Amino acid sequence: MPVPSQQIRYILSGGGDGWEILHRARQLAAAGDPPLNLCVGEHDEPTPPEILAAMDASARGGHTGYAGLAGTPGLRRALAERVSARQGVPVGPSNIVVTGGGQGALFYALNAMLDPGDAAVVIDPYYTVYPGTIRTAGGVPRIARARTENGFQPDFATLDAACDGAKALLVNTPNNPTGAIYSGETLEMIAEICIRRDLWLISDEVYDGMSFARPHRSPAALPGMAERTVVVGSMSKSYAMCGFRCGWAAGPEGLIKLMTDLALNVAYGQPGFVMDAAEFALGRPDIEARICGTFARRHEIARRALAGAQAARAGASDGAMYLMIDIRPTGLSGRDFARLMIEEERIAVMPGESFGEAAAGHVRATLTLPDDQLHTALTRLAEVAGDLAAGRRAAPAA
Amino acid sequence: MPVPSQQIRYILSGGGDGWEILHRARQLAAAGDPPLNLCVGEHDEPTPPEILAAMDASARGGHTGYAGLAGTPGLRRALAERVSARQGVPVGPSNIVVTGGGQGALFYALNAMLDPGDAAVVIDPYYTVYPGTIRTAGGVPRIARARTENGFQPDFATLDAACDGAKALLVNTPNNPTGAIYSGETLEMIAEICIRRDLWLISDEVYDGMSFARPHRSPAALPGMAERTVVVGSMSKSYAMCGFRCGWAAGPEGLIKLMTDLALNVAYGQPGFVMDAAEFALGRPDIEARICGTFARRHEIARRALAGAQAARAGASDGAMYLMIDIRPTGLSGRDFARLMIEEERIAVMPGESFGEAAAGHVRATLTLPDDQLHTALTRLAEVAGDLAAGRRAAPAA
Repeated sequence: MPVPSQQIRYILSGGGDGWEILHRARQLAAAGDPPLNLCVGEHDEPTPPEILAAMDASARGGHTGYAGLAGTPGLRRALAERVSARQGVPVGPSNIVVTGGGQGALFYALNAMLDPGDAAVVIDPYYTVYPGTIRTAGGVPRIARARTENGFQPDFATLDAACDGAKALLVNTPNNPTGAIYSGETLEMIAEICIRRDLWLISDEVYDGMSFARPHRSPAALPGMAERTVVVGSMSKSYAMCGFRCGWAAGPEGLIKLMTDLALNVAYGQPGFVMDAAEFALGRPDIEARICGTFARRHEIARRALAGAQAARAGASDGAMYLMIDIRPTGLSGRDFARLMIEEERIAVMPGESFGEAAAGHVRATLTLPDDQLHTALTRLAEVAGDLAAGRRAAPAA
Repeated sequence: MPVPSQQIRYILSGGGDGWEILHRARQLAAAGDPPLNLCVGEHDEPTPPEILAAMDASARGGHTGYAGLAGTPGLRRALAERVSARQGVPVGPSNIVVTGGGQGALFYALNAMLDPGDAAVVIDPYYTVYPGTIRTAGGVPRIARARTENGFQPDFATLDAACDGAKALLVNTPNNPTGAIYSGETLEMIAEICIRRDLWLISDEVYDGMSFARPHRSPAALPGMAERTVVVGSMSKSYAMCGFRCGWAAGPEGLIKLMTDLALNVAYGQPGFVMDAAEFALGRPDIEARICGTFARRHEIARRALAGAQAARAGASDGAMYLMIDIRPTGLSGRDFARLMIEEERIAVMPGESFGEAAAGHVRATLTLPDDQLHTALTRLAEVAGDLAAGRRAAPAA
């Protein structure tokens, strides 16, 4: 019997993914005892019907054959306009390749930047799939820890040291899982390190429509950065189109061309009717405004539910669909607190430890529940944390 | 400025793709002078409306969120049944991963089998994307030439020598670009070599519904082969769903599980409504029968148009959507004959040389034109070849 390649076995070599709470939530739901689920980074509402109608019209209009490998001309044009305006980087259609979701863009970009053994730096806490995606491209993930005391913004000394000898840096603002929005100072520090160390930068900006506390800014717009930065975007979050698997990478034309060769060999492009639906959606900024408005409103609801709570603080979370809640005053780990919450309160949150080591003693809550349920869940979470911290409630036996 | 990775620049290192005739055909069409186009491996009819309706119903029913990474349970079940029946290998849903078209399955399988520098063997003439896909996985393509005199079936000595020290073999029956269907003897030879040399086998069977001259047989069904074979399939050809990018790999459970890790990191799965449309289609074998029936009929029309032609013979082509026509009696290369046909006759065929060296002096014609146009084009092609061979017509200056 031949054996599988080392390279594919290497993908998961970083250990488990820490999704046991999500699995438990699904198990309870299947058993008729669904928790209030604050685990999933997926919309609680389906894709708007006008987008589905656009997809159906495209398919019935005959757009069911092979579409362009880098994306349809219309979608690439619309994306170039969006990136130019939103990221503040003037780009044209030749700077864009359409991918299988933001995930596809990450994979293509990392492949185009890394050779086997090359290091790519991620900032902890991180979206759980980052290290595996770096390994999928043959690279070696390197972790730079950000601290909750610093609002989960990376600090210069830690980040610069992690970047020594690396080939690429991967950042994400607004951030999953912390909800942090990188400050202008942080962005300038990132640019300085990338230029001095001659690094590629991947800037994952899939939550660029959900920057609630301040306007979104891209590091790609800083001087000297456009030529070394790939911006990753997606229809998933801003348009409630997770299941369409439609994302993009925007970057230097030469690199995008190489990524298009990869798109040919990995999947022979994306469905034309999906791309037509995305192009339609981009022409309807009111849809994005409405969807992101929902999360802005819930963000306020969440902040109010946690206001004044001493044992459950989400001070760093200013954007995206996430709150990273510091529950260290309870004396529990994020994992133990999350277990208690789902088993005793039927409220599901992710342990911070699922996203690296920097968020130990935290839990991540998503804003993907209806307003009233979100308020109920977070109010209760704050009460439980307060009771634990004050000794009014005993921690469960481990 | 950082430089792109060696690994991504390596993908296209095999040189050009030889698609100049296809580009010229598109150019002429855009200029209002469209040729009869026998170049494209894509249906001339759109996806059947009932499949589009199923996709729309799924999307409107709310299946617009993330779907299972290996595919929906329903589609994996339907595919397991299909593979069990069609390939003659008993498999279950855990032996299936849904991919971005057959191309995605090739890419995942090659990644799971090859480490950088490992050799994978392809049989020349080959589908043009094979060598690049092997390189995309970090592998080294090795070519085993099949001969037109042998009906483009590989011969033992050549294939066995090419497989020396290789890690995997990639075969395709019914074959693109030759239309050859591998005989029982060929399949047994392939199995013998794979087992003796402990190779993985990728069996690309995307044309399994278009085996006109004899029933389709899969090498996976031979003794000792299921444990080392990944069968690649696709909705593209059998259901006129090219643009849906919906394919699958069927193979040993452990390997499929590793390929699913890759599916997570490469694209985070496929769209749920696309998978629901595919599941619907698989429950309607009458659609596949009708579509494949069209190609069976055209195959007969093509054979009749070329019957008796001494200078344009397609003796090896018994299946798929292709005829590999031997025009060596004209004294021209496939490339020069194809150029003459498009420039002087407005008939577009692919030079055999585009698919490797074994089909030099041939041209590939696809069956993707309406019956009458197909008959007209091939009748004229046979006349031109005959005139050239008999000296009644002069070859153009090079």
